[in-house]
Amino acid sequence: MDCSLVVLGAGPGGYDAALEAAALGMDTVLVEREHLGGTCLNWGCIPTKLFLGASAPVSSLASHAKLKLIEYEPEAVRVSLPAMQNRKRKMLAGTHKAMALRLRKAGVTLLTGTGRFTAPGTVEVTDAEGNNTTTVHYNDAVVATGAGSASFPSIAPDGEAVLDPQQLLELESPPNSLVIVGGGAIGIEMGEVFARLGASITLIEAMDRLLPYEDPEIGEGLAKLLKRDKWTLRIGERVESLKTVDGRAVLTMESGETMEADKALVAVGRKPNSAGMGLEDVGCELDPRGFVKTDENLSAAEHVYAVGDVNGLSLLAHAATHQAHYVVRRLAGREQQPYRGGAIPACVYGSHEMMRAGLTEALALDAGGEKVEVSRFQLAANPYAQAQSAGYGFVKAIWLDDILVGVSALGHGVSHLVTLAEVLVREKISAERLGGYVFAHPTLDEALAEALRAPREHIR
Amino acid sequence: MDCSLVVLGAGPGGYDAALEAAALGMDTVLVEREHLGGTCLNWGCIPTKLFLGASAPVSSLASHAKLKLIEYEPEAVRVSLPAMQNRKRKMLAGTHKAMALRLRKAGVTLLTGTGRFTAPGTVEVTDAEGNNTTTVHYNDAVVATGAGSASFPSIAPDGEAVLDPQQLLELESPPNSLVIVGGGAIGIEMGEVFARLGASITLIEAMDRLLPYEDPEIGEGLAKLLKRDKWTLRIGERVESLKTVDGRAVLTMESGETMEADKALVAVGRKPNSAGMGLEDVGCELDPRGFVKTDENLSAAEHVYAVGDVNGLSLLAHAATHQAHYVVRRLAGREQQPYRGGAIPACVYGSHEMMRAGLTEALALDAGGEKVEVSRFQLAANPYAQAQSAGYGFVKAIWLDDILVGVSALGHGVSHLVTLAEVLVREKISAERLGGYVFAHPTLDEALAEALRAPREHIR
Repeated sequence: MDCSLVVLGAGPGGYDAALEAAALGMDTVLVEREHLGGTCLNWGCIPTKLFLGASAPVSSLASHAKLKLIEYEPEAVRVSLPAMQNRKRKMLAGTHKAMALRLRKAGVTLLTGTGRFTAPGTVEVTDAEGNNTTTVHYNDAVVATGAGSASFPSIAPDGEAVLDPQQLLELESPPNSLVIVGGGAIGIEMGEVFARLGASITLIEAMDRLLPYEDPEIGEGLAKLLKRDKWTLRIGERVESLKTVDGRAVLTMESGETMEADKALVAVGRKPNSAGMGLEDVGCELDPRGFVKTDENLSAAEHVYAVGDVNGLSLLAHAATHQAHYVVRRLAGREQQPYRGGAIPACVYGSHEMMRAGLTEALALDAGGEKVEVSRFQLAANPYAQAQSAGYGFVKAIWLDDILVGVSALGHGVSHLVTLAEVLVREKISAERLGGYVFAHPTLDEALAEALRAPREHIR
Repeated sequence: MDCSLVVLGAGPGGYDAALEAAALGMDTVLVEREHLGGTCLNWGCIPTKLFLGASAPVSSLASHAKLKLIEYEPEAVRVSLPAMQNRKRKMLAGTHKAMALRLRKAGVTLLTGTGRFTAPGTVEVTDAEGNNTTTVHYNDAVVATGAGSASFPSIAPDGEAVLDPQQLLELESPPNSLVIVGGGAIGIEMGEVFARLGASITLIEAMDRLLPYEDPEIGEGLAKLLKRDKWTLRIGERVESLKTVDGRAVLTMESGETMEADKALVAVGRKPNSAGMGLEDVGCELDPRGFVKTDENLSAAEHVYAVGDVNGLSLLAHAATHQAHYVVRRLAGREQQPYRGGAIPACVYGSHEMMRAGLTEALALDAGGEKVEVSRFQLAANPYAQAQSAGYGFVKAIWLDDILVGVSALGHGVSHLVTLAEVLVREKISAERLGGYVFAHPTLDEALAEALRAPREHIR
């Protein structure tokens, strides 16, 4: 079959690329080996948000009860994991159907199977059984095959008691105890879900803080909040081995200490889905970790582009879609400029949230310039946060040569500030120009405005 | 006593005016007859948000239980109104103290008492007992005395069973039944609080929909949601009389029908605090409803300005502070332009929220121009909303001659979109320019982006 564009992978990047390409008149083939929606929809952002949303009242009841605003018997409120799984499956089935319909309506040809480059201009798609192969001839190709869970040989999910995030999200009954290896977004969000379902949580992070790529104040503040929620945190400690013994997860630390739990989650990072696809045969280069190298136009080789997790620029769904739109517009001749993703905004969800738009303080220091300053505001002084019985946290603004270059925040509900912060950062809003907007009262948004207006502390 | 600026009223407008004036070097006197913070802090936005926040788990438990995600016995979860009152009093006391301290530190002289203009350049401040009078000579004055609850002779709060919002917010035990006269923000928010506390709610609105100044789709959609929550809504019906009989509220409709309830709330609007202040003696004019007339610079008379509720431009706290900052900057010579408040963003809070930034469709039609269009997005298709078990609602964008002039939204959590929408409207963001921002996934913000990108329906 001939097409102008073949897209490999129907996650957030590939799906959006195919739809937009079809809308711009390109004859488009989309290849997916498993489910439409990729990791984000099926085993990532969406199921975790669904589980966090479904179990949220457990946290808010507890925080209100601490203030005596609500009285209740904790055991009288039961979150049902089977019901959550059921709702997830229904939601996914509905979304898959809607996505397939939208592709069909847009005129995208969907091929189910695994794509492999066999020569420049040719992709072969083989179905799951390996029985049928379809040869696709393309003018241009977009590789959007995403990433999967990373692990180490001594810490490898086995599907019994040692699980990867996808396996953990399939459990039908919650463990009483859960050890999480990895203090990134996945470990923290899943820990919160299972803590609300009654599990005692132990989290181990080898680096010196939670969320090590974010501002240190974020990880340190979050650790404080999670300890208050009775999590056991082992920060700066390394796991020697983790395996299933007699149905339970047995973990040995580098120190020699061992611990056991009903289940363990390995959430130590992501590895790109780039092997065995013939990428090198069409001129793509992979970096040592397997990420597809791209140039400033997201091109990986002649007529081959790579977007999303697989190129390693950012492992976030919205980065993938942003890149996909760029590449398709470029192919359609609507975009001549190099890709400017800039700093990709990020959130971690739960009772204690974090968000960042633009740069962290450390990245601002790395970015050159003369002067780095920070200004901040404590959520405790924000009436909206007070009303949620959740006043711990802060908004921190980063200034580089008097220009706003980043905002980080920690606290209940701060994920709601992420796009506002993103717009203010991209628009290089000055504290003075803020006066042109009316901040509704009372909102959490006012905490962001206050942080921007606060006196600045000189960092460099 | 002599000063350069006297400010009458220490609500959001007056307090901010005094602080900013002092910061800009003006010798400032602030006059307040009762509590720092005005209606907003003491009897308005803040207590209602505190009560809504404290009782929120009751709503989320119910919506999750409908989806079988959570099982619980509703009677096992008790929101405590006395605890809420207690927390409110503590929070107010703390805030009053912090505000007084901030005024003192800023060098503002705070006079407790009622101010009255006795001649141009002179305000007399009399304390509550009427014993002591201080004469203040000013160069400029800012009137920021706010507004109180409006009522009609036949529907007048008596403090027994017929209450104004302030009295309702002081109750120590919730009524079993509550009749609310007035379907504006106050009636809706207080209804939600007391519904969560177990009261059956009947709401009567004389106009043809709830929130009659907002987009009709908002009021109509909200009515649908509140009916689902078992509220009795009497829309487009008028109350003939409302009084306390034998300790209960007895209401007679124009139709002759009568109804009874434990308590009734009169929330039919606001009337300015402008009487008996000698405003006319210094050249101010009042409109027939008592609002102080102001010119394009918010000036009410020579050397007299009026900000906030009392000038009737907008009855929202954040409008008052925005106006206050303008007036003070103007007095300091930092502002030469006429005041441009524009459309003031508005929210209604609760389980089902609304927000508007910029114009409604009706106001856009009134605004002239060639072409009015709307584009919209249903929250049911937003994964974040789905995860909150709250998919009903929408975001509606209003375009005037291809420029974004307004955004309205209805649904769970949409108050979080208000400042983002405000910034996008004030910046006249085009759908194309949206592509320059990365919308984090999954967020409610994406619903706003989708509404802006959706095909537009031609209205005129």
